[in-house]
Amino acid sequence: MGVQESVQKPLDRLSEALNAEMEAVNALIRDRMSSEHAPRIPEVTAHLIEAGGKRLRPMLTLAAARIMGYAGPFHIHLAATVEFIHTATLLHDDVVDESRQRRGRPTANLLWDNKSSVLVGDYLFARSFQLMVEPANLRTLEILSNAAATIAEGEVLQLTAAQDLRTDEGVYLKVVRGKTAALFSAATEVGGVIAGAGPDQVRALFDYGDALGIAFQIVDDLLDYGGATETTGKNVGDDFRERKLTLPVIKAVARATPEERAFWSRTIETGDQQNGDLDHALFLLARHGAMEAARADALRWSATAKAALARLPAHPIRDMLSDMADFVVSRVA
Amino acid sequence: MGVQESVQKPLDRLSEALNAEMEAVNALIRDRMSSEHAPRIPEVTAHLIEAGGKRLRPMLTLAAARIMGYAGPFHIHLAATVEFIHTATLLHDDVVDESRQRRGRPTANLLWDNKSSVLVGDYLFARSFQLMVEPANLRTLEILSNAAATIAEGEVLQLTAAQDLRTDEGVYLKVVRGKTAALFSAATEVGGVIAGAGPDQVRALFDYGDALGIAFQIVDDLLDYGGATETTGKNVGDDFRERKLTLPVIKAVARATPEERAFWSRTIETGDQQNGDLDHALFLLARHGAMEAARADALRWSATAKAALARLPAHPIRDMLSDMADFVVSRVA
Repeated sequence: MGVQESVQKPLDRLSEALNAEMEAVNALIRDRMSSEHAPRIPEVTAHLIEAGGKRLRPMLTLAAARIMGYAGPFHIHLAATVEFIHTATLLHDDVVDESRQRRGRPTANLLWDNKSSVLVGDYLFARSFQLMVEPANLRTLEILSNAAATIAEGEVLQLTAAQDLRTDEGVYLKVVRGKTAALFSAATEVGGVIAGAGPDQVRALFDYGDALGIAFQIVDDLLDYGGATETTGKNVGDDFRERKLTLPVIKAVARATPEERAFWSRTIETGDQQNGDLDHALFLLARHGAMEAARADALRWSATAKAALARLPAHPIRDMLSDMADFVVSRVA
Repeated sequence: MGVQESVQKPLDRLSEALNAEMEAVNALIRDRMSSEHAPRIPEVTAHLIEAGGKRLRPMLTLAAARIMGYAGPFHIHLAATVEFIHTATLLHDDVVDESRQRRGRPTANLLWDNKSSVLVGDYLFARSFQLMVEPANLRTLEILSNAAATIAEGEVLQLTAAQDLRTDEGVYLKVVRGKTAALFSAATEVGGVIAGAGPDQVRALFDYGDALGIAFQIVDDLLDYGGATETTGKNVGDDFRERKLTLPVIKAVARATPEERAFWSRTIETGDQQNGDLDHALFLLARHGAMEAARADALRWSATAKAALARLPAHPIRDMLSDMADFVVSRVA
């Protein structure tokens, strides 16, 4: 994750078009992240929720509902639900990854402690479930509770898969659908369902969110080995140092000589990294065209996302979602 | 928590009476704790779920539904939901408390790692929400999602309150309702709601679960300062060593001389404990009658639980619940 920056421009236009509804979402989030009894809760959530996230996921819900002609009010609750699930996930991710920075600020686990991050994350999960019950729509409840399970399953799968050279592109896709795409696709799908869209259009909205999320994550993987620090807020090679088997590496491993495989095994599986290893990793990625191949995948997913939109009614918001699919991959195209 | 042992006898009779339904709950739990993609999930959950917990909470749901004449099938889903929420909470509690043993076995965070416990706990939370959606009953959804939020809020409150001498009995009750009683009362309440019980009877079921949960926790607090290791599986003084402000200490602090207050401040707030401090703590508890006062509270809550049952139809299961309220406090009575 952490690639929100890459969609800033179309997202700004979406923000403008959906401004009044997004204000309502923000007000609902502020209202529900409070706690009468435990002041630690609003402290931690305010730190994260007000840290300037782009609110991409709730925006997707609002956009889908608008395209399908929904007048409200429950897309607001669903959008806030999606953001709460996302925020809870971030709190727990930072504990699991022992992260020290997010969105350019110290993480909650660093400012407070792991305990607070675990328990406040649980509180936000519970709050998200309270919120998703309010529209009294069983289909959106199913979609969102299924998404929450897929996210958690993807995170656990990543624990074991990320440092195992046997992880292939099929497993990678499952992890990415879990950690990123499941919430994107749930966000767009529930926007359609609450608007009463038919099954074909709901499916198109799901497909858009799914493909956009996957393209997002692949671009994130690519930028880690090639992006400049100023644009991404990350350092080149962070994933390598953290021994994460991302798509470019999976492709390079699939094409590795025995000697190269031993290199990946030492650096990723064993975690025995030395000076010069990152440069050698970059050399191997280049030798096997792994970056180009991953880039082609990202472009393909972006095209899939746009093709899904063609199955929806014409709408200015639909065009902005299409531009977003272009924008996501523009930094690696 | 950790006081399930104290209700074994009436619970055994309940188990027998509700055996067929409990088998259905166990089968549903086994089915839903699996994961096609992430083998770490069933490993961790099996370790905990099959470790011989007494399944008290799901039994309360089954008992309430039976008393109110419900024939099924959705009390099974609700009972499994309650157990999943409980199990997810235990996984996260053990991370937060850095526990090494639960139910006489090494904890999941010790056998695997904190990461697995956090993420598998999240998975079980999400699974619990999927399960609670299935009965398609909005009222039970509200009750269970509200309970999940109350639990998380109580846990966060405990983080800051447990080592703060300003914590009074009012705050203590909020923490206990969160960490223990909220799931008890939700368990009995949803059993009544799914059975179509009227508001007065639903309220009686809630009151029983609430009072039983509070009595439970107070007994747990008492046994920590007075119970033998063989009966409780805990060591005398664990709460003191972990600097937890439990009910007997709160009562002793309220009656403390300035000198005594300095002792509690040093040992609980600052955590600077020396040889002989536990003995002195026990002496102060005795001097101010703190154990007796807490015991009287437990007995009062047990009586409240039984009084609530009188508002329900006569039923052999109702009598077993009454015996359980007696049994909970029998070890300190």
